[in-house]
Amino acid sequence: MSFDGLWSSLEPVGRASATGGYRRFAWTGEDLTLREWFAAEAARRGLDLVEDRAGNQWAWWGTPSAHTPGVVAGSHLDSVPDGGAFDGPLGVVSAFCAVDALRDKGFVPSKPIGVVNFADEEGARFGVACAGSRLLTGALLPERALALRDNDGLTMASVLRALGRPEPATDPEALHRVGAFVELHVEQGRGLVDLGAPVGVGTAIWPHGRWRVDLVGEANHAGTTRLADRHDPMIGYARLVLAAREAAQRHGAVATCGKVRVEPNGVNAIPSRVTAWLDARAESADAVWRVIADLTGPVEPIEESWTDETLLDAELRRRVADVLGDPPQLGTGAGHDAGILASKGIPAAMLFVRNPTGVSHSPAEFAERDDCLAGVEALTAVLQDLAGAP
Amino acid sequence: MSFDGLWSSLEPVGRASATGGYRRFAWTGEDLTLREWFAAEAARRGLDLVEDRAGNQWAWWGTPSAHTPGVVAGSHLDSVPDGGAFDGPLGVVSAFCAVDALRDKGFVPSKPIGVVNFADEEGARFGVACAGSRLLTGALLPERALALRDNDGLTMASVLRALGRPEPATDPEALHRVGAFVELHVEQGRGLVDLGAPVGVGTAIWPHGRWRVDLVGEANHAGTTRLADRHDPMIGYARLVLAAREAAQRHGAVATCGKVRVEPNGVNAIPSRVTAWLDARAESADAVWRVIADLTGPVEPIEESWTDETLLDAELRRRVADVLGDPPQLGTGAGHDAGILASKGIPAAMLFVRNPTGVSHSPAEFAERDDCLAGVEALTAVLQDLAGAP
Repeated sequence: MSFDGLWSSLEPVGRASATGGYRRFAWTGEDLTLREWFAAEAARRGLDLVEDRAGNQWAWWGTPSAHTPGVVAGSHLDSVPDGGAFDGPLGVVSAFCAVDALRDKGFVPSKPIGVVNFADEEGARFGVACAGSRLLTGALLPERALALRDNDGLTMASVLRALGRPEPATDPEALHRVGAFVELHVEQGRGLVDLGAPVGVGTAIWPHGRWRVDLVGEANHAGTTRLADRHDPMIGYARLVLAAREAAQRHGAVATCGKVRVEPNGVNAIPSRVTAWLDARAESADAVWRVIADLTGPVEPIEESWTDETLLDAELRRRVADVLGDPPQLGTGAGHDAGILASKGIPAAMLFVRNPTGVSHSPAEFAERDDCLAGVEALTAVLQDLAGAP
Repeated sequence: MSFDGLWSSLEPVGRASATGGYRRFAWTGEDLTLREWFAAEAARRGLDLVEDRAGNQWAWWGTPSAHTPGVVAGSHLDSVPDGGAFDGPLGVVSAFCAVDALRDKGFVPSKPIGVVNFADEEGARFGVACAGSRLLTGALLPERALALRDNDGLTMASVLRALGRPEPATDPEALHRVGAFVELHVEQGRGLVDLGAPVGVGTAIWPHGRWRVDLVGEANHAGTTRLADRHDPMIGYARLVLAAREAAQRHGAVATCGKVRVEPNGVNAIPSRVTAWLDARAESADAVWRVIADLTGPVEPIEESWTDETLLDAELRRRVADVLGDPPQLGTGAGHDAGILASKGIPAAMLFVRNPTGVSHSPAEFAERDDCLAGVEALTAVLQDLAGAP
């Protein structure tokens, strides 16, 4: 099946007609549809479908083992709320297309080749990004994952139980089957636009973390409670938003208050509680920690996740760059499953596809078809090189 | 049936086990259960159940008309999100108890006596408070009400249609059947605590309004978008919250940002849009308008509702105070259906029942049983006086 056919088969799944964006959250009906899609695409190609104990899906051409680990491409299929079509799916679709292209040209791999769909990469539902790859590698402990709650108060444990799924577990055997991982991803900035290149190679993933801030007040009537008698947590939230922006500016970082939950969220009620989430990143971990330190005191940020700077494997990167004729190399402020695997010593590389506006995590996220096809071509060449050498 | 029996029959309806608060929103299953409860209590007493064209429920002892208008007591049964048990239901339950008490003592009214349950008083679902009484009086036009949307994007029109209900309409005939209205309500402040009285009489309802502020930005990735490139509406929201508090302080008003909607509300996404609601009140309309004027410019507050100061009928108030042996009199910053009726020239009075903490619009809202019984006794005496004179 062509890139266009694969791409259009994904388009309707989880699309919100009101915004044009995608709502593909882990372990929802939409996510299950995407997982069935992945299984069907594996079956169509005669690839062996394996689900690891952490819930990630693998489609293998050949049989990998710890002795003969495979070369894997892929990404994820879930989305942020009202996300774009490209963040995640472009990597999975391109990986299937690369397998097709290798077969079309009669390529006989000397190592197994795999396509992966990592579960719950965005963390949109349970709050921890890259949950599937973190569970796989042990960076997220199963007992912690199972206790995470979604916005409806459901734990991951109860959601998985209701689906009749096993409890997730760390899976070192599945990890040992991966000799190298190449994640193709739409760029989430305008680096390649400025450089005039359709495809680039990743160098590093910025250190980044998520914090939760619980602001507790006292619910009361908005009309009858004097200002002096109020314990209004919305005031503390407003100060946090502005302080986070100022601290990020001061320390050369980025910080975002993108998600907030207000209780009871009534027009004429002083809130009893505001729960805020803060995302902070920078080129150096030190800068991120300075932002958090500046906020601590007035509030108590609780770390929900933290990922150190991840340098992608230098040797693999050099090899990928050689195969592709030395395209531009660039770092990114976005976290990826490739970074989680790299932090556990798996050689991992990233290919970025040009994003004309730089916009991501938005219905406006876009990549030109020609650039997507250039990405498939690059990924095909990289897999051929990595799986061809004996 | 006793006060305790009536009270406890309402307790389970719409109670959220997570918070202990009530979620009784207009035209939901919970609200329909409450309306059935009202109809059953009317039937149990042989009162005539009448639903006016605006959706409010009336239970009549005797047959009112424009020539022989009745004396009505009551309030509403809906709640704010995670509201308390008393705000609204105390007035309806007390009215039924007063009817029972009058009958027990063999009282023969010379005017019809009614109990009312006003629909959608809190405006928790569609954003306009006192929607039922405003529709009744014409203060809210049916076409505007029908176009109001809830948080799921449903219009009031589609919600009522799905329930098989007629479109609401202004109902001057129903209004002309009301000769006087007495609303008993839990106090939403600590005035009666300070005065050491279980029951007080209302003097005036502060002018108050609700405004919506639409802050539009551009969704983008929280990790990859430089601060300088951001259009983050959360920053504008934070400034609005603090500016509203400062303006309220400056002008001797109260202002509250109690409800906010963030899109897409993802941890790692810069919001595309933040919708804020502002509630502002003061003893004088002028002070409220000064607050709004101070905020206008950086943002554009859109008025969703406005109610001028409402002085409760002086003659009726004097008469009620005489009957009750001159209890304390006090104004309130909370809006009430009594105020809507008063603004249309219907003589309306309010009785307040002491609230030991002053807390309202919260699961912690409370009134002592003895004070509730004192309220019933006061309301009984007032109805006997008003309906007894030929």
